[in-house]
Amino acid sequence: MSIFEDNKLQNTDVSELGEFGLIDHITKSYKCKNKGSLKGVGDDAAVLDFSGDKLQLLSTDMLVENIHFDLSYTPLKHLGYKAVAVNVSDICAMNGKATQITVSIAFSNRFPIEAIEELYSGIYLACEKYNVDLVGGDTTSSTSGLIISISVVGEVEKEKVCYRKGANIHDLVVCTGDLGAAYLGLQILKREKEIFLENPGVQPDLQGNDYALERQLKAEACTKLIDVLDELKIVPTSMIDVSDGLTSEVLHLSKQSEVGITIYEDKLPIDHTTMNLAKEMKLNPVFCALNGGEDYELLFTISQEHYEKIKKDIDFTVIGYVTDKSEGNNFVTKDNTSHPITAQGWDPIKK
Amino acid sequence: MSIFEDNKLQNTDVSELGEFGLIDHITKSYKCKNKGSLKGVGDDAAVLDFSGDKLQLLSTDMLVENIHFDLSYTPLKHLGYKAVAVNVSDICAMNGKATQITVSIAFSNRFPIEAIEELYSGIYLACEKYNVDLVGGDTTSSTSGLIISISVVGEVEKEKVCYRKGANIHDLVVCTGDLGAAYLGLQILKREKEIFLENPGVQPDLQGNDYALERQLKAEACTKLIDVLDELKIVPTSMIDVSDGLTSEVLHLSKQSEVGITIYEDKLPIDHTTMNLAKEMKLNPVFCALNGGEDYELLFTISQEHYEKIKKDIDFTVIGYVTDKSEGNNFVTKDNTSHPITAQGWDPIKK
Repeated sequence: MSIFEDNKLQNTDVSELGEFGLIDHITKSYKCKNKGSLKGVGDDAAVLDFSGDKLQLLSTDMLVENIHFDLSYTPLKHLGYKAVAVNVSDICAMNGKATQITVSIAFSNRFPIEAIEELYSGIYLACEKYNVDLVGGDTTSSTSGLIISISVVGEVEKEKVCYRKGANIHDLVVCTGDLGAAYLGLQILKREKEIFLENPGVQPDLQGNDYALERQLKAEACTKLIDVLDELKIVPTSMIDVSDGLTSEVLHLSKQSEVGITIYEDKLPIDHTTMNLAKEMKLNPVFCALNGGEDYELLFTISQEHYEKIKKDIDFTVIGYVTDKSEGNNFVTKDNTSHPITAQGWDPIKK
Repeated sequence: MSIFEDNKLQNTDVSELGEFGLIDHITKSYKCKNKGSLKGVGDDAAVLDFSGDKLQLLSTDMLVENIHFDLSYTPLKHLGYKAVAVNVSDICAMNGKATQITVSIAFSNRFPIEAIEELYSGIYLACEKYNVDLVGGDTTSSTSGLIISISVVGEVEKEKVCYRKGANIHDLVVCTGDLGAAYLGLQILKREKEIFLENPGVQPDLQGNDYALERQLKAEACTKLIDVLDELKIVPTSMIDVSDGLTSEVLHLSKQSEVGITIYEDKLPIDHTTMNLAKEMKLNPVFCALNGGEDYELLFTISQEHYEKIKKDIDFTVIGYVTDKSEGNNFVTKDNTSHPITAQGWDPIKK
């Protein structure tokens, strides 16, 4: 409804493009003009040059109730912590360190002051953990749920900034930590919510699944591993954080670096508790690792010369290598057959 | 509803504190730790020192459908433009220039791609106008309306940064442009919406009210006046932008500067079309100027030595002066009686 008659727009559904397609569509013909804007849209963070010793990084994430989180199984303190962590993770993905954040929240009147305090207690805890200052924000009312929008500023030495582009043929593809657990944690929470809705008297059965639940509810950014890479004198040739799922991130790196990437099923880092839990829930653990998302690990490429330095560190797993673009992106299963990697990552627009 | 039994929060309504009270409550015991965070929460923008030639400014604003805007009378292109302008205005209020923005939007599936394109066409137009680069953002779905969260980075020379604190006794209080028109523009749009809802066939009667409608629908940030102040070699002792209404901003400046402020009814800059329109709508034009909000003019204090430089410029109006804190904040009406200024500014939390 509009009081203006000329407001007759065409009607093309956004799902035709998907989230990344929409961003491409909106920004494809846009060019930054200020000389300080070294890198705009299209990486984990923008790269800004304010003529200081270092470069500054800027990123932002918006979390919407019932799209990105469900308050029936997400404690507000955990939500606040995670909202900061996922932003810090974007700065890590540029090989940088987060320094400041702003936090804007919109919430309906069903949220009392105590709920907002809980949310901020998690935000402050994450600020403390990641050595980030909360320097601004906005609070407003919403007509329905809770919306959290965080922007993060970070810094990186000029010669150490990592983009999604930059991977070279023969580079090794490395993943930190392990994959798939956060997705399984979410499946457990969803399962227990269903049971609770049917039988509100029944207490949730979360026992024995601490690791998966922690990965979902208390996501951490890989700030320590950025320090480890620095100590090892390794600057990745390209990097991204695993927020939408490994396959989705592989496609981003290969597209922007104009290369192909081959990864191996038998190299994927999957925790043994994730393996067991996936089987118990009748899910394929490899599918969870490839497409689950929300692991907030780092995926990066390095020159082969660094292999000896990295191979002893259990935090890093070499999961594949970079090929010529003509070879495409491939996933080699245990039976040694190769499957093209297609876009199946978690898409919040379609969710 | 929560599947966790321990989620028993007390239940204090946020309206007991209001927006500014809530921000104070949440941030009062928080201290920034990084040496680069010169000023955190509590001004129009955070002030950051990245060891460059200048200081950086960071601010953020969130706009929520049916709280901050009504799409039945706000064209999406205008909305996009205004969302950028109000952020740029926050940087102006620090005596700085905006350089980069990030834009996050959440929208429900009732918005087709063409609607998002319209919104971004306004965003890009404002980026062009204010010489700001769009360097990042986030797009996601929402369960109900449209939410726009913009963060802006700016810069200011170290010796020119203006805070809300800093006003000195005997300083002059100066306002740019004119006040009250944006509020009246909103009242016209609301009136025409009511008429439209009752008689959908009737075309809106917006004729003759171009100025008020433009002030509401196409808000502009005072970037040019920042240049004028620079040319006049004037650095305000304190400054804020008029987003919530003049009285609200007077209270912010006086509180943070620990002074009193006296302003005069007969000095208030009110356009003659605003005067006429207010009378036509049976509204008090002075009330509109004092409490209307969304004018996005600048309110600042200057040393008396600058009076000669500023008095000839029609963009600036001296509306009062700074007193000792003990005298409080006062509004002197035309009959020369003095009234204490109390918080009556536009409060989006209560709206």
